Amino acid sequence: MKLLGTMSVNELGHLEIGGCDTINLAYKYGTPLYVMDGKWVKTQCTLFKNGFKGQHAETEVIYASKAFLNIAMCQLIKEQGLSLDVVSGGELFTAMKADFPAHKIYFHGNNKTVEELIMALNYGIQQIVVDHEMEIDMLQYLCSEMNKHVDVLVRINPGIEAHTHEYIQTANLDSKFGISTEKEDLCQIISSIRESYYLHLRGFHYHIGSQITEVSSFTKAADVMTDFLLKVKTLCGFETEVLNMGGGFGVYYSEGDQAPDLTIFLPEMVESVEKLCQTKGIRLPKLLIEPGRAIVANAGTTLYKVGATKLTAGGKNYVFVDGGMADNPRTALYDAVYEAALANRMEDPLDTTYTVAGKCCESGDILIKSIELPRAQRNDFLAIASTGAYNYSMASHYNRLRNPAVVLVENGNSKVIVKRETYEDLIKNDCL
Amino acid sequence: MKLLGTMSVNELGHLEIGGCDTINLAYKYGTPLYVMDGKWVKTQCTLFKNGFKGQHAETEVIYASKAFLNIAMCQLIKEQGLSLDVVSGGELFTAMKADFPAHKIYFHGNNKTVEELIMALNYGIQQIVVDHEMEIDMLQYLCSEMNKHVDVLVRINPGIEAHTHEYIQTANLDSKFGISTEKEDLCQIISSIRESYYLHLRGFHYHIGSQITEVSSFTKAADVMTDFLLKVKTLCGFETEVLNMGGGFGVYYSEGDQAPDLTIFLPEMVESVEKLCQTKGIRLPKLLIEPGRAIVANAGTTLYKVGATKLTAGGKNYVFVDGGMADNPRTALYDAVYEAALANRMEDPLDTTYTVAGKCCESGDILIKSIELPRAQRNDFLAIASTGAYNYSMASHYNRLRNPAVVLVENGNSKVIVKRETYEDLIKNDCL
Repeated sequence: MKLLGTMSVNELGHLEIGGCDTINLAYKYGTPLYVMDGKWVKTQCTLFKNGFKGQHAETEVIYASKAFLNIAMCQLIKEQGLSLDVVSGGELFTAMKADFPAHKIYFHGNNKTVEELIMALNYGIQQIVVDHEMEIDMLQYLCSEMNKHVDVLVRINPGIEAHTHEYIQTANLDSKFGISTEKEDLCQIISSIRESYYLHLRGFHYHIGSQITEVSSFTKAADVMTDFLLKVKTLCGFETEVLNMGGGFGVYYSEGDQAPDLTIFLPEMVESVEKLCQTKGIRLPKLLIEPGRAIVANAGTTLYKVGATKLTAGGKNYVFVDGGMADNPRTALYDAVYEAALANRMEDPLDTTYTVAGKCCESGDILIKSIELPRAQRNDFLAIASTGAYNYSMASHYNRLRNPAVVLVENGNSKVIVKRETYEDLIKNDCL
Repeated sequence: MKLLGTMSVNELGHLEIGGCDTINLAYKYGTPLYVMDGKWVKTQCTLFKNGFKGQHAETEVIYASKAFLNIAMCQLIKEQGLSLDVVSGGELFTAMKADFPAHKIYFHGNNKTVEELIMALNYGIQQIVVDHEMEIDMLQYLCSEMNKHVDVLVRINPGIEAHTHEYIQTANLDSKFGISTEKEDLCQIISSIRESYYLHLRGFHYHIGSQITEVSSFTKAADVMTDFLLKVKTLCGFETEVLNMGGGFGVYYSEGDQAPDLTIFLPEMVESVEKLCQTKGIRLPKLLIEPGRAIVANAGTTLYKVGATKLTAGGKNYVFVDGGMADNPRTALYDAVYEAALANRMEDPLDTTYTVAGKCCESGDILIKSIELPRAQRNDFLAIASTGAYNYSMASHYNRLRNPAVVLVENGNSKVIVKRETYEDLIKNDCL
């Protein structure tokens, strides 16, 4: 397992994260346990803030909170000076409870409900990324009813596909998101916003996929999008103030993954847009990006206790852990590949190939299909790395398993930021 | 959409379930809403109880609660006289809160924790289905510590695959579940249980997969398993009292699915085992089955509100609903196919092909890839049928969406059995 962030191995041969012995964490807080490396989160925030700069362009970095959100995380992002992207009333509510500044929140989503938009307007959200014409009409109506003024970005589908897993591509022609660059009545849509007394069209948003590791994917999309900005300027007479380039920055999950060097990648992104705008003779807009996974994926490690091992008649070695697809559905959903280690025996030789299976009553409840580990024993602790994004946020109660606690570690200190669910929590809404 | 259970269309052209107008339900309880057809659940329980009988065999039907469980459902199953299969402390806790009789609970799982086993023993669970040798040792130890006596079934992997989706096959040679019929030290394992003062070996459990529609799959497995019972009798000197044949009864989800006629299928299952035992000269054990999906899948319908429609540049028609993969991950996980209808316009012509997408910020958040509907409008209500199994139970908070309410309908009455989550619920365990 590649040691990421503040991971190290201490003199006991235990995995440490944030200066905390993970075995102590497991005993203190129980397992399964999501451990978040606070310093890594801060480092990534800084990397994005400092890296996403150019010679001319004004820039802004927005954390895509769907990757991992709770009140403590909101506060951390606030302290780091990033803006926040929310996609639901639940994310917005969490941000509000953390006193996240409303003017730094962007509200996304292909199907925001009336209730969610009202909530956003009442909270004073300034920036709404509208997905389609029906939403523009609804927002215009609500703003006029509530006498609210908001800035609007229109989500555009540039028809670009980044080379990622089918489920996480977002910008082919048939994506559910946004308005196509080729849409015939584009100028009409733009006019309908510009003519509104309540809506202020500031620009456009697009997002080309997830786990993108080649800057060329972003450059290609920027080329298409600057063509679009030129078209919009020429045909519809609208000069774009803001261009939100979305997220999708690839991260390291396992051997073979090549996470981009953000100190090179990000300035290149900005520079490419600066050049494209200059070449095409369009005003350089303010540039926005929305990293989520790239901020938190590698910051997260899930600690499990080994309950048993099994050698099947087919010759497969299993190690069974006390969590599974309920706390991490990404292997089942996306064929995600993770690295892992026995956290209490980091220096033992990796002599056995295991399949890591969870405790759910389902054959698909496999966390890692194949991994080299020391010969595992009951009560060993297994650490799966890079589980900071879309694990906690996608967790279910399948098999009525309780959601694990989340612990933030930094400088040798650990702090529970989300308490482990109790059995009582599971039935809290059951009616007798 | 095929009308299932008590579904009907009323004079307003609305979908009714359990004598309740679903549009009234949507207005009264909000959307998304899980609607459970109480009568269908009872009918299925009765079908299983009455159908799973033979000329000689004693039989028992156990509800596999992982498909759908909450306190009200426990009570319903209790009233119907079925036993209960639980796979975790959370399921067990729910059963306990519903005063489900402990002696009718079977405790399953490939990796039960010590805490869960202690909880089960304290509650007086009589029947534990052990998965592997390490668990047998642990159970023996705990029983001796706690001075408890329990009946034990050993989960066996018969090496049979039923023809279903990869994720829900459970009995190939490399499955994580059970002990192989071919295991060399089988008699030793059996002896270790029989020699225990605290454990009483009653027999075996197996499960060959999900969505099985051919009785031949069960017959083939029964043939393998009766061979195994004979081997165990001959080689290890153990005569099996109980044979738990698991679940996996196929249900109708969409056109082309052929759900078995249980009134024929179930007696055939019993008869086949009776004959096999007679032929092979082994004592006919008590036969158990564990339907889950077949009890609840068709009883459930999810009601959504349509937020918008969209025609993409690629020519795809979307209808956006106010839920998605957070309340139903089965399309993303298993490529599940569902039927749906506009619940407020059941008699309008089906003139448009739609993709039904949820509101999650993810391209994979598609509920139905292709379905014929009337031309949909904002504020229409979409009903997706057959969502009673593995929807509520697999629901997540992805995008911080709240879990929908569950309403039980019967004879024109509706009753909330699980309340809709509040925004406050989402942050209840967040630490400030």
